[in-house]
Amino acid sequence: MEKRIITISREFGSGGHLIGKRLASRLDIPYYDKSILDRIAEESGYSREMMEEDEKKAKNSFLYSLTTAFGSTGNGPDYLSINEKFFLAQFDYITKLAKEGPFVIVGRCADYVLREVPGVINVFVYADKQEKFRRIVNEYGLSREDAEKGLADIDKARANYYKYHTGQEWGRPVNYHLAFDSGYMNIEGCVDLIMRYVELKNK
Amino acid sequence: MEKRIITISREFGSGGHLIGKRLASRLDIPYYDKSILDRIAEESGYSREMMEEDEKKAKNSFLYSLTTAFGSTGNGPDYLSINEKFFLAQFDYITKLAKEGPFVIVGRCADYVLREVPGVINVFVYADKQEKFRRIVNEYGLSREDAEKGLADIDKARANYYKYHTGQEWGRPVNYHLAFDSGYMNIEGCVDLIMRYVELKNK
Repeated sequence: MEKRIITISREFGSGGHLIGKRLASRLDIPYYDKSILDRIAEESGYSREMMEEDEKKAKNSFLYSLTTAFGSTGNGPDYLSINEKFFLAQFDYITKLAKEGPFVIVGRCADYVLREVPGVINVFVYADKQEKFRRIVNEYGLSREDAEKGLADIDKARANYYKYHTGQEWGRPVNYHLAFDSGYMNIEGCVDLIMRYVELKNK
Repeated sequence: MEKRIITISREFGSGGHLIGKRLASRLDIPYYDKSILDRIAEESGYSREMMEEDEKKAKNSFLYSLTTAFGSTGNGPDYLSINEKFFLAQFDYITKLAKEGPFVIVGRCADYVLREVPGVINVFVYADKQEKFRRIVNEYGLSREDAEKGLADIDKARANYYKYHTGQEWGRPVNYHLAFDSGYMNIEGCVDLIMRYVELKNK
């Protein structure tokens, strides 16, 4: 089948991460996720720890837009906050990857970053709370307590981050080509579904 | 494959109606849409014309909730507006159908009506404006002017109607198991995708 750039956004516990990895492996194309921060750090000179720490803060604070508005590293234009600089470095890096060929990327607002690139397929994976809880405990191996906490916090953080950098609501179908409830499906089944969609969409 | 009740909600021009018909035919199960109003009229004694007229008014007026609040046919509890009575008759009819076996239904807030029925699969079909316009003109055979008008009005009306009767936002993924952009796909392809999803989801 035709190989494309596929972005995957996912609710915590929906299996999106595993789906992305497996999809890339079956298509024999590169897989990217948060780990690209390492390469961005190397190329940009920013510290990976600082990027990650700042991103975490940003995601979890509703004061995000206030605190970042006053931050500046002195590296790059002064009016850009630290977090915006990190996001821009990530933006440039993902845009550069897109020029090199097809890949699968999970998270990183990649659907937004690549919105002008023709042929990109954007996927959103979600599930009901009960099914996500089951997957987090049984498949990801987290404790029931951590699963509860993750379900309460992580998607809220993702939605904050997405909203801040894209100005849009996370998880609205209009931003994706395919969105599905992965509950009661195994990872291979989810990968099958995405591959079938890409195959059927002959843009 | 296992036969299930499948509800299809769709943006105007996304092909959802044709997809539903073809899906029912390929699964060899009944197909329902707005035409169930005829049977509801027969069973309930309400006039089909009146139901349809009232629904149209309801969908297109932001004063809906005000005007319906004061209407009463004297048929059924007094505190129910005309439109609510029609909706309830439809609700009962669709609930009764669900006891008889699998089918495909397009529109009618059926995802909401059947939300407590186990095993129902809810699908939402959408597309970008350009692709919907192309489909409306080339496949539905409407004039360019009617297509423009339909695109501007019909989905707004559907969202109003859905919001009024269900209290929820139309088109939010959380209300559907599968949502996809049908642009650049033919009807058979869309049907394939839905069948594949149902097959993979072994609830």
